[in-house]
Amino acid sequence: MRSWPVGSWQLLGLLLLHLAAAPAAESILRATKRPRHRYTPDWQSLDSRPLPDWYDEAKFGVFVHWGVFSVPSWGSEWFWWHWKGQRQPQFQEFMNENYPPGFSYPDFGSQFTAKFFHPDQWAKLFQAAGAKYVVLTAKHHEGFTNWPSPVSWNWNSKDLGAHRDLVGELGTAIRKRNIRYGLYHSLLEWFHPLYLLDKKNNCKTQHFVRAKTLPELYDLVNRYKPDLIWSDGEWECPYTYWNSTEFLAWLYNDSPVKDVVVVNDRWGQNCSCHHGGYYNCKDKFKPEHLPDHKWEMCTSIDQLSWGYRRNMVISEIASESEIISELVQTVSLGGNYLLNIGPTKDGLIVPIFQERLLAVGKWLSINGEAIYASKPWKVQLEKNTTSVWYTTKESAVYAIFLHWPESGFLHLESPIATSLTKITMLGIQKELKWTTDPSEGLLIKLPQIPPSALPVEYGWTIKLAGVQ
Amino acid sequence: MRSWPVGSWQLLGLLLLHLAAAPAAESILRATKRPRHRYTPDWQSLDSRPLPDWYDEAKFGVFVHWGVFSVPSWGSEWFWWHWKGQRQPQFQEFMNENYPPGFSYPDFGSQFTAKFFHPDQWAKLFQAAGAKYVVLTAKHHEGFTNWPSPVSWNWNSKDLGAHRDLVGELGTAIRKRNIRYGLYHSLLEWFHPLYLLDKKNNCKTQHFVRAKTLPELYDLVNRYKPDLIWSDGEWECPYTYWNSTEFLAWLYNDSPVKDVVVVNDRWGQNCSCHHGGYYNCKDKFKPEHLPDHKWEMCTSIDQLSWGYRRNMVISEIASESEIISELVQTVSLGGNYLLNIGPTKDGLIVPIFQERLLAVGKWLSINGEAIYASKPWKVQLEKNTTSVWYTTKESAVYAIFLHWPESGFLHLESPIATSLTKITMLGIQKELKWTTDPSEGLLIKLPQIPPSALPVEYGWTIKLAGVQ
Amino acid sequence: MRSWPVGSWQLLGLLLLHLAAAPAAESILRATKRPRHRYTPDWQSLDSRPLPDWYDEAKFGVFVHWGVFSVPSWGSEWFWWHWKGQRQPQFQEFMNENYPPGFSYPDFGSQFTAKFFHPDQWAKLFQAAGAKYVVLTAKHHEGFTNWPSPVSWNWNSKDLGAHRDLVGELGTAIRKRNIRYGLYHSLLEWFHPLYLLDKKNNCKTQHFVRAKTLPELYDLVNRYKPDLIWSDGEWECPYTYWNSTEFLAWLYNDSPVKDVVVVNDRWGQNCSCHHGGYYNCKDKFKPEHLPDHKWEMCTSIDQLSWGYRRNMVISEIASESEIISELVQTVSLGGNYLLNIGPTKDGLIVPIFQERLLAVGKWLSINGEAIYASKPWKVQLEKNTTSVWYTTKESAVYAIFLHWPESGFLHLESPIATSLTKITMLGIQKELKWTTDPSEGLLIKLPQIPPSALPVEYGWTIKLAGVQ
Amino acid sequence: MRSWPVGSWQLLGLLLLHLAAAPAAESILRATKRPRHRYTPDWQSLDSRPLPDWYDEAKFGVFVHWGVFSVPSWGSEWFWWHWKGQRQPQFQEFMNENYPPGFSYPDFGSQFTAKFFHPDQWAKLFQAAGAKYVVLTAKHHEGFTNWPSPVSWNWNSKDLGAHRDLVGELGTAIRKRNIRYGLYHSLLEWFHPLYLLDKKNNCKTQHFVRAKTLPELYDLVNRYKPDLIWSDGEWECPYTYWNSTEFLAWLYNDSPVKDVVVVNDRWGQNCSCHHGGYYNCKDKFKPEHLPDHKWEMCTSIDQLSWGYRRNMVISEIASESEIISELVQTVSLGGNYLLNIGPTKDGLIVPIFQERLLAVGKWLSINGEAIYASKPWKVQLEKNTTSVWYTTKESAVYAIFLHWPESGFLHLESPIATSLTKITMLGIQKELKWTTDPSEGLLIKLPQIPPSALPVEYGWTIKLAGVQ
Repeated sequence: MRSWPVGSWQLLGLLLLHLAAAPAAESILRATKRPRHRYTPDWQSLDSRPLPDWYDEAKFGVFVHWGVFSVPSWGSEWFWWHWKGQRQPQFQEFMNENYPPGFSYPDFGSQFTAKFFHPDQWAKLFQAAGAKYVVLTAKHHEGFTNWPSPVSWNWNSKDLGAHRDLVGELGTAIRKRNIRYGLYHSLLEWFHPLYLLDKKNNCKTQHFVRAKTLPELYDLVNRYKPDLIWSDGEWECPYTYWNSTEFLAWLYNDSPVKDVVVVNDRWGQNCSCHHGGYYNCKDKFKPEHLPDHKWEMCTSIDQLSWGYRRNMVISEIASESEIISELVQTVSLGGNYLLNIGPTKDGLIVPIFQERLLAVGKWLSINGEAIYASKPWKVQLEKNTTSVWYTTKESAVYAIFLHWPESGFLHLESPIATSLTKITMLGIQKELKWTTDPSEGLLIKLPQIPPSALPVEYGWTIKLAGVQ
Repeated sequence: MRSWPVGSWQLLGLLLLHLAAAPAAESILRATKRPRHRYTPDWQSLDSRPLPDWYDEAKFGVFVHWGVFSVPSWGSEWFWWHWKGQRQPQFQEFMNENYPPGFSYPDFGSQFTAKFFHPDQWAKLFQAAGAKYVVLTAKHHEGFTNWPSPVSWNWNSKDLGAHRDLVGELGTAIRKRNIRYGLYHSLLEWFHPLYLLDKKNNCKTQHFVRAKTLPELYDLVNRYKPDLIWSDGEWECPYTYWNSTEFLAWLYNDSPVKDVVVVNDRWGQNCSCHHGGYYNCKDKFKPEHLPDHKWEMCTSIDQLSWGYRRNMVISEIASESEIISELVQTVSLGGNYLLNIGPTKDGLIVPIFQERLLAVGKWLSINGEAIYASKPWKVQLEKNTTSVWYTTKESAVYAIFLHWPESGFLHLESPIATSLTKITMLGIQKELKWTTDPSEGLLIKLPQIPPSALPVEYGWTIKLAGVQ
Repeated sequence: MRSWPVGSWQLLGLLLLHLAAAPAAESILRATKRPRHRYTPDWQSLDSRPLPDWYDEAKFGVFVHWGVFSVPSWGSEWFWWHWKGQRQPQFQEFMNENYPPGFSYPDFGSQFTAKFFHPDQWAKLFQAAGAKYVVLTAKHHEGFTNWPSPVSWNWNSKDLGAHRDLVGELGTAIRKRNIRYGLYHSLLEWFHPLYLLDKKNNCKTQHFVRAKTLPELYDLVNRYKPDLIWSDGEWECPYTYWNSTEFLAWLYNDSPVKDVVVVNDRWGQNCSCHHGGYYNCKDKFKPEHLPDHKWEMCTSIDQLSWGYRRNMVISEIASESEIISELVQTVSLGGNYLLNIGPTKDGLIVPIFQERLLAVGKWLSINGEAIYASKPWKVQLEKNTTSVWYTTKESAVYAIFLHWPESGFLHLESPIATSLTKITMLGIQKELKWTTDPSEGLLIKLPQIPPSALPVEYGWTIKLAGVQ
Repeated sequence: MRSWPVGSWQLLGLLLLHLAAAPAAESILRATKRPRHRYTPDWQSLDSRPLPDWYDEAKFGVFVHWGVFSVPSWGSEWFWWHWKGQRQPQFQEFMNENYPPGFSYPDFGSQFTAKFFHPDQWAKLFQAAGAKYVVLTAKHHEGFTNWPSPVSWNWNSKDLGAHRDLVGELGTAIRKRNIRYGLYHSLLEWFHPLYLLDKKNNCKTQHFVRAKTLPELYDLVNRYKPDLIWSDGEWECPYTYWNSTEFLAWLYNDSPVKDVVVVNDRWGQNCSCHHGGYYNCKDKFKPEHLPDHKWEMCTSIDQLSWGYRRNMVISEIASESEIISELVQTVSLGGNYLLNIGPTKDGLIVPIFQERLLAVGKWLSINGEAIYASKPWKVQLEKNTTSVWYTTKESAVYAIFLHWPESGFLHLESPIATSLTKITMLGIQKELKWTTDPSEGLLIKLPQIPPSALPVEYGWTIKLAGVQ
């Protein structure tokens, strides 16, 4: 219908940038000097971009869901939607029983205080967990921004409650420890009046996108230079509504992070699992066979919620063995594993989450060799007496078995021994004894040592050198 | 630099309109059918528009300052600016002594509950006060909107605290009693990030105007069809920044209130007292001589604040005689008198304000004949033993004297008696005796009655029929 | 197994005294040296005590109802009882609509902050009102003590909310201005579990009296040395339950205020109007004829409540003329007039109360001569064209008329003129002209002056010297 | 006047009883009919009472610290004392940074809401943990009572915040699952004014004891019939001040729980470890050798606090192996093990506590045979390659070893094999092979099975039948 001027929202983004930080502006100038391949705003071009290496090597990241939903900390981070969008009775009862009449979701805002948020302690914990990247919800579907977004006035963490730039503070702490920093960003906002207006217009108008989504995406990139953008909330409108291809073209061509940034696949209706950077497909997605595109499995320690729930019961929380099992399977199938925790409204990570994260860290301190920077092997899974998952790195092959076979012997069918074959268990110095069985598989005698002498309690890695 | 598409913000305004109310849309359609004089977006054309009659006839209105500033209810409605803009020590101390560290102004939002706001009771009171129009702060400089503005998400009275459309509810109640309804609207917002950005750019960019000011002005007009727009907050940028002439041209040509709407003069730097509808000039402005342009004196019963202050002291509150004196003087000099009250955060009008408003109403019930729909007379003020202010209506001349002369005789120099002259005091049936004095003035014998028999306690009106 | 000493609660009172203030202890020692008449703990003896002179001379006092009921500030100071004792629907709705489920009256406690309580400003206001004594609710029926009572732990103004000794602070300020200080004290506490237990036992056990009432009464007297104890809440049990006569005997014989203290008449079922110091009889009691016992009329500016109500409407508030009329009538009939105001939870006295109190003060500044230290005259009231109330002091007789007679002449039947008779109006220097009428009454020509020249607007005093 | 009866506080206690529950009164009547041995109120008599059997057989209990300290949930349950008693800087800073000026500890009261307290869920958890008794803080040193104490008006869980009888509700749920119910009760209250008065008097007056301590102890016993009273807060005054011996004599002779009740040893200065029922001695007390008096080790999963702390770090939390190690050692040395958790202010037990408790429960489900109703054996501890703790029950001897010996053989020196000797590991059906070593000790071959096949991960029990 009408012609929209080139990039007025982008111009706003750039102007905001001037406000935010001069160095960033310089880096853009520098960037524009170099001649280089430029992506065009269509999927064919954008999908052709190679994924920066760091991402595949990282394998394990921590996901952090934190927002105003951390205040009621009940149900899940979809609290507002369940309450006011779907009018689920149990959410209405929860409010009736605990708050004065008329109390609204925005009224929670000033209680999101983050009083005990010490970003260096979080970063230290994530490092001890072995995470190579951390993804924070900069803005969830509720629309509340965890940074001082100029187009989300008085509905952000700087104006209300915490009065802090949570995105900025965590980023600084994370990077001090050489961990990559990603930002989750929801395209949609359940109850934003301009979004509701656009939806009413069948995504044919873009008031919301121009007033909110795009200025914020540009602002996030220019201000915080994220290594990863974890897009979400795309499902109700096509990517043309979201202007996703234009944004990604800018991100890949001209943004301050054009060389390192990684994105996922949620950029518009029907994009997921088809376009973008790596694929998340749906939440907690687990492929059965090796996919032909880099992917990531995201999941949450609290199996019922991504945001913090006060009333978690231990039976709802993933056990250490479940987590390690999923991590191993994901990496073996070529994926990254993004494990979520939800901090409290006052910025604390509760002990059960600390315990699980540290358990992963402890496991990785022994078995990380088979995980970080590994590649899928020709075979991923063998099921014999126990499940065995393979990875490979350089010339070594790693077989990770989840349960200890009763017999004390581990049988591997796929690797073919050679004269150079040498077999060890990660965390134990002595070589293991083995034989080939009639079908040319390997029969490995596991070490006979008391439980407490084992390197880990679950998920042991056999390193096979010199096998085919 | 770049061309801005015609009216994108206006388009948004119209779309919002579709959401708000179908009938409004129809009235626009009707409007576009009639051929009529059209104003152009320049002051010469706009200033040529005649002021709709109702306004000059109204003479007396009630101004209502209500917003988030009513929560601290201390200092004044400029609380936020004094605290965070100017960092006045007493405001900082007030916060330190009464709120937890880090508490911000937006944190007040959810306490603006309006729990006891009964718009019909307000309207009844304003009617009893004799007000012919009521002006409510739809949005003050704090940017909080007292209606569900789609571009002020979560910083408005529907999303937060009250969870009500205050502008709409009061409008309905006011109009049920045939009182005209005006809306105060601040162009600027002290701390809006986009406004700060534009100010940094010397009002050369219009991010704020397009994202906030204009969509809200259009929304207000389309949604509530105000009889009056009381513009404010114009002083930091020129009218070209605010797009004021374009807005007014639309308002006068095409808006649903194009035939009845009245505006004031605060539409950009240096506009006040020069352009627009009637003139406010500066707050509490009192001309010394009869101005040649319709004007309005706005003032507040609480002489130190427009917004509610908990700690008012009676000595700071205008007395009945001060108020009536100002009303009389203003009307005599051709002005309208807009008297302000500040309701509490829970929507109550405290008794002292009720008392003053009712005192005006009681006075007008006797003397309204000399006020409503009156015109200035050839002489406005005579100072003899007492001050006498004149008004006129049809063939009558009204002389209002503020203090009762000790002699019991009122001396008027300006009116010239004729054979038809008949003199009465409003509120008393019997004609008064009078003579002409040597200089052709009138000497009127005031009634000798006990204090309690007088029609009012202060500001008596002598009605002169048949004088020149 | 040791036997418990007689008067253990009194002992506790004395011990608390030691904690509170050494000087007080000394004054007790001094007191015990002087031999003097001792009262016995029975009404015959106690009722025989002459009332200290200051009280009858004072005539006008200010009553202050302040407590946790000032937090909801809705309904009246009986809020708790109406809500939880009687379960009145409108109180239950009020709570349901404004507070979270389960919110209780004690939960209000921490909101009684008295943040803006400046006792010197109160005292200044009360002085300007012409008050000669001030009575504060040290403890109302809710049981919350406005001082740090050691037997009301965590249910007093020092432990909760205000964290101040309100009784002490106001006392200091009041006495700096030479105003007498009285303390209202409720014997009963609606919901105290020990009181409920005693009530269940038909007032036959005294758990509550020993644990709470008596320790607090002794503590109040020893700590604050009140000039007046305004007892209340006596009606459900006999004085023998309350140990009232023992307490009063101690108060009159041995307390630090034994020479100056005044008490009222609410000390047990059926005591009121029969025993004690002066009589209040019932609230707002107005005798028709001159009583033969000193009495006091207590009433409230807010005619519907003693405690502060947010939602006062001006029509519910006593006007200046109503107040002055009652004051005059009360004094003429030998009573004292105790006029109540309810401060807000943050310690402010709202402007309408300031205005009324100052109006009384302004009236008294002219007419106080006829009020303070006056006595009833032989005739109290004459009704002719207007009501006239008499008082007398020394040789003068004062006739106070409430409405100005239309004729301009005041007719007095009772005073008999003599050769020495001299008649003036208080506030006007010139003597008034008068004649005797046929029936020997006086016919006084009132001054003919404009309304603003009158000394007061209502309730003028004619001073008659040399009449019989 | 009238003489005060001996034991007025006890009388009050009995009267309160009538209010509370009729059946309780009946049981007293029944009790008084039976002639039986009566204890006298002196330690010689009281100490001679045999401990009811259930207690020694129970071995494992759960301790629950819950009170107003759960609201700040920071530092420890001694929050108030650290803040206001000792004025520790970090507590003062905590308050300054998080609360408005003047906020006091009692102001926390209304936030102790227990909104998510479901006593049946707690009871289910404690049962799954294998606890045979549960001890709740009915009142900690802060003086706040978790039941509607009639002498702690408005400073209890029924009047404030939760508005529930927490002691009663938990008791009902606990007993439904046949778990014994104990009540922790602090004799002292840090800041109670009457206690401060008594302390000032060197514990020579008993205002506090008579007004608060004794009425509440009697009330607790009569109302809730606890199986155990866990006394604390005794250290500042002698038992004669607390009237402890009188109370215990009543408890043992006449109370409704006289046959089953167990108490600890904190009943006055220097009582601990010397008088009373079982001994706690000091907190977390661990004897080195077998004591000659029944004792209990109390400790907390959160090693830094008994009350809930929001900011727990996993490294401060006892691990499963530490807990089981302590449990085993305690039982071997004849003690009971009382393991503490601190619920949140809203009544939740956080997952890390759930996890630890369930780990104990899981361990006990296998090894409980060696714990419950066991007795110390002739030898308690053997240290060889690993620590081995002994218990015995009926004819069996149990050897619990904490670490698995590298050799795969467990060497026991103390048991002497006989021809009937039969050796098994709890949780494994097959008998173990063993030999006697030269010094007549036993050499037991441990089962060679994969880690996941072991009955527990830590602390394995060898059952020895037919040894000496």
